[in-house]
Amino acid sequence: MGQPMAGHLLAAGYVLKVHTRTKSKAKPLTSKGATWAATPGEAANGADVIFLCVPDTPDVEKVLLARDGVLESVKKGAIVVDHSTISPSATRGFATQFGKKGVKLLDAPISGGDVGARNGTLSIMVGGDEGAFKHVEPLLRHMGTTITYCGGSGTGQLTKLVNQILVSITNMAVCEALTFGKRNGLDLERTIAALAAGAAGSWQLANLGPRMIKHDWKPGFTIDLQQKDLNIVLQTAEESNTSLPAASLVHQLFTAAQAAGHGKDGTQALFYVLEKLASLH
Amino acid sequence: MGQPMAGHLLAAGYVLKVHTRTKSKAKPLTSKGATWAATPGEAANGADVIFLCVPDTPDVEKVLLARDGVLESVKKGAIVVDHSTISPSATRGFATQFGKKGVKLLDAPISGGDVGARNGTLSIMVGGDEGAFKHVEPLLRHMGTTITYCGGSGTGQLTKLVNQILVSITNMAVCEALTFGKRNGLDLERTIAALAAGAAGSWQLANLGPRMIKHDWKPGFTIDLQQKDLNIVLQTAEESNTSLPAASLVHQLFTAAQAAGHGKDGTQALFYVLEKLASLH
Repeated sequence: MGQPMAGHLLAAGYVLKVHTRTKSKAKPLTSKGATWAATPGEAANGADVIFLCVPDTPDVEKVLLARDGVLESVKKGAIVVDHSTISPSATRGFATQFGKKGVKLLDAPISGGDVGARNGTLSIMVGGDEGAFKHVEPLLRHMGTTITYCGGSGTGQLTKLVNQILVSITNMAVCEALTFGKRNGLDLERTIAALAAGAAGSWQLANLGPRMIKHDWKPGFTIDLQQKDLNIVLQTAEESNTSLPAASLVHQLFTAAQAAGHGKDGTQALFYVLEKLASLH
Repeated sequence: MGQPMAGHLLAAGYVLKVHTRTKSKAKPLTSKGATWAATPGEAANGADVIFLCVPDTPDVEKVLLARDGVLESVKKGAIVVDHSTISPSATRGFATQFGKKGVKLLDAPISGGDVGARNGTLSIMVGGDEGAFKHVEPLLRHMGTTITYCGGSGTGQLTKLVNQILVSITNMAVCEALTFGKRNGLDLERTIAALAAGAAGSWQLANLGPRMIKHDWKPGFTIDLQQKDLNIVLQTAEESNTSLPAASLVHQLFTAAQAAGHGKDGTQALFYVLEKLASLH
């Protein structure tokens, strides 16, 4: 995700230093004028704004706080923008640590997938200092179309988790409904066409339903990544004493999908599990 | 629902005989020229097309098969259109019985609520003989905008049940997601605005989410009726050996909503149960 996002900033004329764990992945950026940095700290050194986009909380912790990390070399007054989806409570901890050095850290998780990153049409949900948000908003507009300031530190992450609860359970709705229809002999394409515009309609039905019917498991967003996010959802739910019976159920059935070898497939492969429960294969 | 639907046929110039269990409810139709019939059989006598719209399977059975019911007096070649949402297997049984008298019975359940019935914008999902469907389609077009022929007898009901699985679980997605957000201090209006246009988007989120936030339980569709439909869903799932873990869960939590006195409220009052689980009231 990070590479096309950084590409939009480069194309807009900004001066970029880039660091990636696998150097070859930075090639499309360095070939267009970005400077290679050997460590996150070297990339952060002297920068006005530092963006990062990595998979999980421990990855962010390493980039920010490990030896040769961002905190070591970031200058006072800089702004750190974290596009990763990670724990809201860990995010607040990072923001506090950077605050002590006079640096604002914004949580700015994204949704919209590879396609959104390439086309600059991501949704970006931002939490943290509002002044810092306003300062970086013009840069975010090069990467996304729906930029929302959600409130204080961690609220960008929390809003992203709300998104993940919605997409997971709505995906489950589509899987169960289509399995029920298939088991009872309905023409599923006709069924989707009849229902998609009414109260049963959702992005998941319109976009993933047709792929489920064709057993097209090509990932927009993988089950492994969805599970990573649901782990954060359920951990945050526990921290806040919130009972999430349906999200927990979907998490368990995604585990069954992973056990069946579908972890690298798109989330629509949850349909495989429901079909299996109905002895449809 | 039946009264405004019949009103559209009357307004289009058709000659109507009407029967309702409570005579006063037919007043708006008889005052505009419809003839009152004392029994379903009297209404059906001589009619080319017979429409019915009642709550549940036993109600349909009574209207069709009881003494003074439709089967007694319906003429050969007539078409019966059942707008009720009932058991698909019972529907197939009724169709067979009417078939023996040379009468086609179409299952034609509707969605779109009171508003759709009044405005003539219902979705109508039709199962049964295709020739009979084509014959009555012009009449259905006075009542609805999305008219779908789904296949043989019972497929209209099955498609409606797929609709009910989708709306119930997607509603649950919205309830859980907003409860999680509320418990964690998010501004929920801002959250919905940030997410509604993306992969998390659904009719349920856009339409019921804002009502949940305001604790506006005014019914579009009541929990009692949703439970009636989910009972048919789960019974049909059992008949077809289909496991529906999420629909079952939502059914159980709707039962909790009924126990808390929300049966006559809109389905968005499921939010009350999730909030209660999170000790938000």
